[in-house]
Amino acid sequence: MAKQVVKVLVNGYGVIGKRVADAVAKQEDLHLVGISDVVADWRVKMASTKGISVYSSLPEKVEEMRRGGVQVFGTLEELLRSGGVDVVVDCTPAKVGAKNKQLYEKYGVKAVFQGGERHEVAGVSFVAQRNYEEALGRQFVRVVSCNTTAICRVVGGLHEKLGVSKARVVIVRRAVDVWESSRTGIMNTVVPELHIPSHHGPDAQTVIPDLNIVTLAAKGSHNLYHLHMAMIEFRSPTKLEDIIGVLEEEPRVVFVSGSDGVDGLNSIFEISRDLGRPRGDLYEIPVWFDSISTSPDGREAYLIWATPNESNVIPENVDAIRSITELEVRREDSMRKTDKTLNIVKKLY
Amino acid sequence: MAKQVVKVLVNGYGVIGKRVADAVAKQEDLHLVGISDVVADWRVKMASTKGISVYSSLPEKVEEMRRGGVQVFGTLEELLRSGGVDVVVDCTPAKVGAKNKQLYEKYGVKAVFQGGERHEVAGVSFVAQRNYEEALGRQFVRVVSCNTTAICRVVGGLHEKLGVSKARVVIVRRAVDVWESSRTGIMNTVVPELHIPSHHGPDAQTVIPDLNIVTLAAKGSHNLYHLHMAMIEFRSPTKLEDIIGVLEEEPRVVFVSGSDGVDGLNSIFEISRDLGRPRGDLYEIPVWFDSISTSPDGREAYLIWATPNESNVIPENVDAIRSITELEVRREDSMRKTDKTLNIVKKLY
Amino acid sequence: MAKQVVKVLVNGYGVIGKRVADAVAKQEDLHLVGISDVVADWRVKMASTKGISVYSSLPEKVEEMRRGGVQVFGTLEELLRSGGVDVVVDCTPAKVGAKNKQLYEKYGVKAVFQGGERHEVAGVSFVAQRNYEEALGRQFVRVVSCNTTAICRVVGGLHEKLGVSKARVVIVRRAVDVWESSRTGIMNTVVPELHIPSHHGPDAQTVIPDLNIVTLAAKGSHNLYHLHMAMIEFRSPTKLEDIIGVLEEEPRVVFVSGSDGVDGLNSIFEISRDLGRPRGDLYEIPVWFDSISTSPDGREAYLIWATPNESNVIPENVDAIRSITELEVRREDSMRKTDKTLNIVKKLY
Amino acid sequence: MAKQVVKVLVNGYGVIGKRVADAVAKQEDLHLVGISDVVADWRVKMASTKGISVYSSLPEKVEEMRRGGVQVFGTLEELLRSGGVDVVVDCTPAKVGAKNKQLYEKYGVKAVFQGGERHEVAGVSFVAQRNYEEALGRQFVRVVSCNTTAICRVVGGLHEKLGVSKARVVIVRRAVDVWESSRTGIMNTVVPELHIPSHHGPDAQTVIPDLNIVTLAAKGSHNLYHLHMAMIEFRSPTKLEDIIGVLEEEPRVVFVSGSDGVDGLNSIFEISRDLGRPRGDLYEIPVWFDSISTSPDGREAYLIWATPNESNVIPENVDAIRSITELEVRREDSMRKTDKTLNIVKKLY
Repeated sequence: MAKQVVKVLVNGYGVIGKRVADAVAKQEDLHLVGISDVVADWRVKMASTKGISVYSSLPEKVEEMRRGGVQVFGTLEELLRSGGVDVVVDCTPAKVGAKNKQLYEKYGVKAVFQGGERHEVAGVSFVAQRNYEEALGRQFVRVVSCNTTAICRVVGGLHEKLGVSKARVVIVRRAVDVWESSRTGIMNTVVPELHIPSHHGPDAQTVIPDLNIVTLAAKGSHNLYHLHMAMIEFRSPTKLEDIIGVLEEEPRVVFVSGSDGVDGLNSIFEISRDLGRPRGDLYEIPVWFDSISTSPDGREAYLIWATPNESNVIPENVDAIRSITELEVRREDSMRKTDKTLNIVKKLY
Repeated sequence: MAKQVVKVLVNGYGVIGKRVADAVAKQEDLHLVGISDVVADWRVKMASTKGISVYSSLPEKVEEMRRGGVQVFGTLEELLRSGGVDVVVDCTPAKVGAKNKQLYEKYGVKAVFQGGERHEVAGVSFVAQRNYEEALGRQFVRVVSCNTTAICRVVGGLHEKLGVSKARVVIVRRAVDVWESSRTGIMNTVVPELHIPSHHGPDAQTVIPDLNIVTLAAKGSHNLYHLHMAMIEFRSPTKLEDIIGVLEEEPRVVFVSGSDGVDGLNSIFEISRDLGRPRGDLYEIPVWFDSISTSPDGREAYLIWATPNESNVIPENVDAIRSITELEVRREDSMRKTDKTLNIVKKLY
Repeated sequence: MAKQVVKVLVNGYGVIGKRVADAVAKQEDLHLVGISDVVADWRVKMASTKGISVYSSLPEKVEEMRRGGVQVFGTLEELLRSGGVDVVVDCTPAKVGAKNKQLYEKYGVKAVFQGGERHEVAGVSFVAQRNYEEALGRQFVRVVSCNTTAICRVVGGLHEKLGVSKARVVIVRRAVDVWESSRTGIMNTVVPELHIPSHHGPDAQTVIPDLNIVTLAAKGSHNLYHLHMAMIEFRSPTKLEDIIGVLEEEPRVVFVSGSDGVDGLNSIFEISRDLGRPRGDLYEIPVWFDSISTSPDGREAYLIWATPNESNVIPENVDAIRSITELEVRREDSMRKTDKTLNIVKKLY
Repeated sequence: MAKQVVKVLVNGYGVIGKRVADAVAKQEDLHLVGISDVVADWRVKMASTKGISVYSSLPEKVEEMRRGGVQVFGTLEELLRSGGVDVVVDCTPAKVGAKNKQLYEKYGVKAVFQGGERHEVAGVSFVAQRNYEEALGRQFVRVVSCNTTAICRVVGGLHEKLGVSKARVVIVRRAVDVWESSRTGIMNTVVPELHIPSHHGPDAQTVIPDLNIVTLAAKGSHNLYHLHMAMIEFRSPTKLEDIIGVLEEEPRVVFVSGSDGVDGLNSIFEISRDLGRPRGDLYEIPVWFDSISTSPDGREAYLIWATPNESNVIPENVDAIRSITELEVRREDSMRKTDKTLNIVKKLY
């Protein structure tokens, strides 16, 4: 279906949606038709102020949104019916995308779903540097969650190059998003996910089926970035320099160092703000260089990284659009475009 | 001393310094010569990476910084001696600026100090929209702290237009800065300043001598933005609409509204990130429109605002440079330039 | 209705209810019949384990609670019908007490409501040291909230002895209770109450009708204790020593001092735990001695205190039972009994 | 050296010291001579108020402490010289105990050190249920840290009964203690320990030399309790029921359950407060029953527990005294006494 410029609508203008919208707008081969949402709070008003066309995801919300002061161009369905959209990036809350799928099928538009949907909704779960080609030409694709994406980049890279026999990853999650922290947070506690493995391990297997992985997770009392602490067993003894070498080559993975004063997730956020990107976003996975180490027998490696939960899946969304529309057929070509427009680097400072 | 382009050095590349450096670089009539600092952590390395010339504030730190991987162009004193600097914006930690003053005097350069220094160090304490002209042509000026600046903008505006007989402001401060939160924070507590009035009230009087004000302060368990809760007594009964009118006209003050979903400091930060400015900075003081209210007798008004502690003094620093160098002799002319380059608005969304 | 031993049931075994139950059990003139609740989580199970008889507040919950492993002695209504209860202390969530009132009326039992109910539900709002006698013999009484109780003790005492012309109190509230913090908290923010005055001021007037008071409130990012920062205007100039003198005499108010290392709410909690009371509870209002100060003209005093939100109303609940049952007709007699059994002191350390 | 009543002094009245003092005072075969410290803040004043004799750990601090309002009975050295002490429990800050050792040697008193000291300071590192007998009659013993104690109880129990081939434990630590949280905390971040293994793994091996274990750690933004997430590989396939069986039998380990509403560390703290112990202390290790699970091949178990950092080593300190003084020669006899006096249970609710 490859065409010159692909028309994209973002459905759901939340933490992910607003970032995807901005990223899409920066691509020469993509055109942001607009966004659709269901409320008229400051977020949606700001979209209008920025000159983005706003649609209502639900017909019954049009009037409410207009009364709330938002200029609504019409409903999502009207827009899809008009043929004005090639791809919907569905960034609605978890499980809502599955319902929206019928609409996309009805009008024959392609759609990119997020990690809040089950794998089966799209049939292909996607991390650009692992399986870009798997989604080529498909109607639907699912960009996996921030945590799964991080695991697929780091552990997936080690697995591909060095052969991982078993990966164990413990995740200390941010509890809620920054904007919603005034309603639904946790305070002065850690809340473990009691079901083991947490969903992240099986989810990584939707992208890398032959990866043997178990994950445990807990929510920490912070609202930005996840911390991943990984224990990676290799099929055969492996040298520290080889592990470092793989991560140096792996796209969208960078090093930070405690010896440079990078102490915790807060340091990473300060770095990402200083980079000058919109919202202080970070698309890369920063691995603490000082944490990378091996067991005495060389069979196991340990490493710690941060997962920038708001933004590391943004480049994947852009690449996913290119894959299903076949704008690019090779991962390198799409990733190069995306990385350039989003200013993705291999060295943060 | 007005000249075409004023050469500016930023001494101290921390929370304020790095923002001042970026803001200076955006001004047509200012030239950022470089920055000086004393360490070689990721912050300073990133300055280098961004192409900013780095100097060492202290001769004895040159080698350490070079060993740490930073390209050091020389010492601050060498640079001042060379005549390459017209104005130093001193953003070093509190009380260090007072020591640096001797150096600036020795080489006859002008300097802008920050609110961590005592008023006497500069002799003039500065908030652009209150007393720009007072600093014209001076060698030294002090931009007051974020909290004092916010009070001078909001309470100062009401005082100027409506006549305040007594202002009471209670400040719930962020405890530490984002970058340093991994060492020196407070946790699950509120820590009051037991000395009453807190220093903010007297400090506001260094800018507005005839303002009758008392402030109380406490540190809250958060690391971004201060919250100010103000009770303003007027000399004569005052209408709600007049108060709103004054704030609508006041520069660098904006309205936000709980009815738009702006619940707390976190909402304001999310808004400021969405605005697309570097680091998610906010230069304006957002006043909750829904909070503005009056006592039954109209003698007292109540209102609540957020003080973006990292960035609201950045435009003041730019204006302070113009005032002491007489690049502009009228506040309106300097503020217009500053507001345009920093994209300062009267409506956030 | 005064009788030897009053039979008390606690309806709602949450933060307040479980503490009231324990406090009632310690009184010689009160008998804890049991508690009633609607769930079978660890809290209710622990009541059983401690030997407290558990009833179901709602008939339809009996089976669920039994299936959950709790030994249920019957329903609340069955118990009331049997005549086994003289007083219900209703500690159910806000607004539920108002519904329960019909049940208490039906069976002619007396009831103590909490501050989550409106004043009108009981007709008398109660703080022992302010208006004990007002509730004598009434069927219903309402113990006001922790914040209102604290204000009535401290500001009420100053008003009674020194004459307050206007009180302004700013409250930095804990956001949620410790037990529930894993579901509903706020994170790294302060969330102001945009309606001014907050409900606390008018609520204090239900106890002290002639108190001129305005309150502003915000939720802080902590889950234990409120901080109150007060500005008290007197009818005539007042000396610091008189203010201190009043607070020294006022029951259930104590001094702490920053010079003893009492920095913040967390210090107070550590003190209260070291006191050895159950749950680390604190029934007194700790006022920072170092914060008490006056304006130069002596017309206004400033002071800061902590409000132990979980426990400062517990003694009031005990006194309220005695007042409505006329077990004691003078406040001093009831308060002396309560203070002795709960080990309430005038000096914490 | 066994004698009827052993005279105990607690040196250092902080988080651990004050709890040890109270626990010692509850033992029939131990006598609390007093405590020694170096400051005169509210903590030490409260010891006096409670009737505990206070000594000065350092001669040069006597006057300062007296001026601060504390009744000082003399110096630690004077007391030791007088022969009035059989055992010092040294709860001074990390590394200070090593210096104090000379004093204890000089006067031939026995001493119990804490986990902040290196293993070599005492020569024996101690967890009662693992190696009580190893410390019998020794002059010095070291009670390991809260984290190491927890690991030795849980993983040590599984190792002893089922044979562990490799244990991996990830620790999300509380960042600071409750009392100090107003000075030194972290905020809205997670700060990983970049050196892997963290010290906890090797430390557990000082108690259980043949345990193959690796630990990773990070500080979370909370100030109470650590969370441990464990992955335990067994030498041979193991059934879930056997794992549960071992933990059911293991002393000082209890089960809690998410299905009872025990969501996070905050729930555990609320439980421990409801238990009615002083300060809301918890001596047991609560393991989430719902988290215990095995890999499909039965070679690995997963489980999550909380480590009550303030109090789980308190019973160990009591047992350590009995071991080095040979008051009891069998672990069961000492632990039974300790557990009874401290009300340690196998079922929390």
